[in-house]
Amino acid sequence: MAVDFQSIAKQFVEHYYATFDSNRTGLLPLYRENSMLTFQDAQHLGAQSIVEKLASLSFQKVTHKVSGLDAQPTPNGGIIILVTGQLVVDEEEHPLTFSQAFQLCQDPNGQWFVFNDIFRLALP
Amino acid sequence: MAVDFQSIAKQFVEHYYATFDSNRTGLLPLYRENSMLTFQDAQHLGAQSIVEKLASLSFQKVTHKVSGLDAQPTPNGGIIILVTGQLVVDEEEHPLTFSQAFQLCQDPNGQWFVFNDIFRLALP
Repeated sequence: MAVDFQSIAKQFVEHYYATFDSNRTGLLPLYRENSMLTFQDAQHLGAQSIVEKLASLSFQKVTHKVSGLDAQPTPNGGIIILVTGQLVVDEEEHPLTFSQAFQLCQDPNGQWFVFNDIFRLALP
Repeated sequence: MAVDFQSIAKQFVEHYYATFDSNRTGLLPLYRENSMLTFQDAQHLGAQSIVEKLASLSFQKVTHKVSGLDAQPTPNGGIIILVTGQLVVDEEEHPLTFSQAFQLCQDPNGQWFVFNDIFRLALP
């Protein structure tokens, strides 16, 4: 059966940012041992290292607002996603523009996880 | 031998935007029959359809300036790339901020081509 990649991408993105904005360590189950994160030039490999990085970010409060969400199937049965949006940290007045690319893959149990994750803020 | 994915990504991105800005139909060899483009919500499948779309964009002159370029290897031996930057069309004074995600794959002859291509302008 063809995977409904658009629905999976939308559900994933909603879940990802809701979790990021409420409880960053709750993102751990979305990554695996071979997952990669590139976050503003810093590279992290593996679920534990990735979530430690995300949990260590210095802001207390963050809110992501998604403005663009596009998805395509990939050759290995995965899904590539490009998210664009804005985020507000702590009591900052001005939102920051961000882009984030994901590749989701399925594990042997059919669970979707993040294999590739690249995050970048737009230059001011 | 491990693929030097960072160098390949950098070379590809330089070639892609240099070609885009000088001769859009010259992008044809970078796509294949199963390549996908999502361009501001419109979806195109296959090299011919993709390049027709790009060639039909209404501006005469465009200049891309890359500010962020990140790459990671993907499970099928491909490379995922996130580009952020600005572009100026025709005689417009104000640059537009864009994000573009690619997945490059190798064909049986070892040639790299674009399997996934997602382009989006940031909201003003």
